[in-house]
Amino acid sequence: MSDEKISSKWKPEHPVVIAPLASRFVEFPREVRLVEPDGVSSGATYPVGFMASGIVAGLKESGRPDVGVLAVSPEWRKTTTSAGVFTTNAFAAAPVILDKTECDLGRLVAVAMNSANANACTGEAGLAVARAMQSACAQELGVPPSQVAVCSTGIIGVQLDTEVVAAGVRKAAAAVHPDGGRELNQSIMTTDRFPKICAVEVETPDGMVKLGVSGKGAGMISPAMATMLCVVTCDAVLEPSETETLLRDAVAGSFNSITVDGEMSTNDTVLFLSNGASGVRPGKDSLRLIGAALEAMLLRVALMIVADGEGATKVMRLRVTGAGNDDDAMKVARAIADSPLVKTAMHGGDPNWGRIISSAGAAMAGRSLPEARLDLCGVTVVDKGAACPVTADARARMTAGVKSPEVDIELDLGMDDASAVLYFADMGHEYITINAEYHS
Amino acid sequence: MSDEKISSKWKPEHPVVIAPLASRFVEFPREVRLVEPDGVSSGATYPVGFMASGIVAGLKESGRPDVGVLAVSPEWRKTTTSAGVFTTNAFAAAPVILDKTECDLGRLVAVAMNSANANACTGEAGLAVARAMQSACAQELGVPPSQVAVCSTGIIGVQLDTEVVAAGVRKAAAAVHPDGGRELNQSIMTTDRFPKICAVEVETPDGMVKLGVSGKGAGMISPAMATMLCVVTCDAVLEPSETETLLRDAVAGSFNSITVDGEMSTNDTVLFLSNGASGVRPGKDSLRLIGAALEAMLLRVALMIVADGEGATKVMRLRVTGAGNDDDAMKVARAIADSPLVKTAMHGGDPNWGRIISSAGAAMAGRSLPEARLDLCGVTVVDKGAACPVTADARARMTAGVKSPEVDIELDLGMDDASAVLYFADMGHEYITINAEYHS
Repeated sequence: MSDEKISSKWKPEHPVVIAPLASRFVEFPREVRLVEPDGVSSGATYPVGFMASGIVAGLKESGRPDVGVLAVSPEWRKTTTSAGVFTTNAFAAAPVILDKTECDLGRLVAVAMNSANANACTGEAGLAVARAMQSACAQELGVPPSQVAVCSTGIIGVQLDTEVVAAGVRKAAAAVHPDGGRELNQSIMTTDRFPKICAVEVETPDGMVKLGVSGKGAGMISPAMATMLCVVTCDAVLEPSETETLLRDAVAGSFNSITVDGEMSTNDTVLFLSNGASGVRPGKDSLRLIGAALEAMLLRVALMIVADGEGATKVMRLRVTGAGNDDDAMKVARAIADSPLVKTAMHGGDPNWGRIISSAGAAMAGRSLPEARLDLCGVTVVDKGAACPVTADARARMTAGVKSPEVDIELDLGMDDASAVLYFADMGHEYITINAEYHS
Repeated sequence: MSDEKISSKWKPEHPVVIAPLASRFVEFPREVRLVEPDGVSSGATYPVGFMASGIVAGLKESGRPDVGVLAVSPEWRKTTTSAGVFTTNAFAAAPVILDKTECDLGRLVAVAMNSANANACTGEAGLAVARAMQSACAQELGVPPSQVAVCSTGIIGVQLDTEVVAAGVRKAAAAVHPDGGRELNQSIMTTDRFPKICAVEVETPDGMVKLGVSGKGAGMISPAMATMLCVVTCDAVLEPSETETLLRDAVAGSFNSITVDGEMSTNDTVLFLSNGASGVRPGKDSLRLIGAALEAMLLRVALMIVADGEGATKVMRLRVTGAGNDDDAMKVARAIADSPLVKTAMHGGDPNWGRIISSAGAAMAGRSLPEARLDLCGVTVVDKGAACPVTADARARMTAGVKSPEVDIELDLGMDDASAVLYFADMGHEYITINAEYHS
């Protein structure tokens, strides 16, 4: 649920887990320096040559910021290359349709964003609203509309007031400044309990490159991306094809490897802009390093989204191996990660591994898995397809492990090597509270 | 969760909904008379020539009945035909493996059942326990082991004590009597809040035929069947192939059309025994009538299971039409029915149909659905792929409808005709309470 009426009323019952801010699941290459390791930096405006803002347009009942703009500084617009990945939902929202069909995705120089309304399932009228947001931003910045992308998040099926949101975008575009990354985050938050921000410096053989990211997302998160919006910036000098490849590879190992509740939203968008302001033209080795830094940075933000999952209190890393083929590996991983029985067991800190086995078996219906092996928190509980003896010591380790903020689950199906990794959230009462008790 | 430790501690927070006991979703042919329409009859022992029992073997910590036997009366064993359908879970439990590989499924005359332990993921040792249950029952009744099926429900991955359960089965087999259907139900209940029992009389052109059913199931329920056990009885004279066809067709429209939480268990089993005690040899028309009665009766029990779903308070009937092909129709239906966002919205009585659209669109990722139409409680909210105007009157009807115990959702994807119907439960706090707060 990404309805502003919710975020203005809802108060979390438990403190935000901090694990993902220093997750053992994320490994940065040694050439990468994490800026402000508490997760608080200026995000997308950390690299030089980017500006942002977040303002109150009046879409949120709470009166909080609800429209934001990210823009490349005028002097770097000509050298900027960009790429985007979007939800594949058959009911893709108007801004997603606009971005995919009317933008020059390799040459974006600005992004206009709003929360409180997803502008999804709104037909031609919704598309006109998205176009109005794009035009307002382009006009204010003095760039062609095709170089401005639009992102929305919020309630589905309600028409946005064109004048209100266009005026908001104009105001936000006029307000961009070099330290606006955090304001941008404020303006796109819905049920998020904390901003999803990260920034790194990469010491490449060709010189220092900076990367930043501003994102949002809490509920409706699944491996094919969900109500999550993310703008990623970089100051390297990149070809459009390099920008695109870097983004696609990094998203596969980060946003497309998480699930909160198995829901893929109508609005998911990740945009990556690299403006060349560092003057660094990375060679092959540097590109590889930037790619590794980008993937680790996006995984960090992705895990922040999982940890901020509605009702979530911990993050599980699930590895499925020996699945015969990659499709089956991911099918089994998703079945386990999206199983409400597994998620509630993890929430209760209960090493009830029978639920993991049952979910995996359901995903592989009609097959036989006599060589299956399951390790929970490093303790083998199933070997050769059946429960195996567990010492009291090992049981104690497993019980403690399941209660910790980061839990490891490894399932080997015992067939030919093919694997998948999926990070997922547990499910507690707050998920029900947020999604059932406050109304649209 | 089907752990006895739970059912002994857990107290429902809300009264059991009674809708499915008189569900508008179930239509019996006019030739069919429902016995005891409050849902309380002797179930599987309603047809003449069947006996049953439920006793305390000592498997449940609570001291409640935990082992039961259904048996055909000796005089009708020779004319009895039978059929079974089982979970396709790749980690099928030992009793399921035994039934499928070592039983003469067309000639069953008895079923030995237990709760508190699923005997799943227990390897060769578990198979030996299932065989011991089978032998104990066969010996006590004086029939070949291959004519005795075994069913278990409860916790996964824990070995059953062979002596305790075999002694229990022997005791139960010795205790069978013609009115034991309800005792049988007591012995297989886990988190069930009420027994799933039904019985009907069918006036066929060839004479009166009686049908009865005793079942259990609450959590872990999905369209491919779940922790549900069900024995169905009939007194018609049937060929084994007729028994099999009747069962398969009826299960498709009932147990395979429901979902509580999308989980298919390791133990699901439906067994159908027809003993010929009525002397009625049904012709083609009578067979069709018996089939319709059987399907309606099983749907009634299936809806009882949905209504008794862990944390459930209402039942939704979801019809997906215009899906192009049957596989996509069921894929979309399952995506909606198993969406935690849809389930929690329904629980909150919130007509937040954007979640239905988003789930459907995720299931049809990469497609475009410009002709989609959505009706919620008879009110059209989406037409030609976009939100459409809803009058205040219609909105009031829809809001009231979503708060009622039975909710209709109709989604037309606007492509070639292909449809699916799925009945599903909402999801509330009790689901979390049962599955997270009590431990294995």
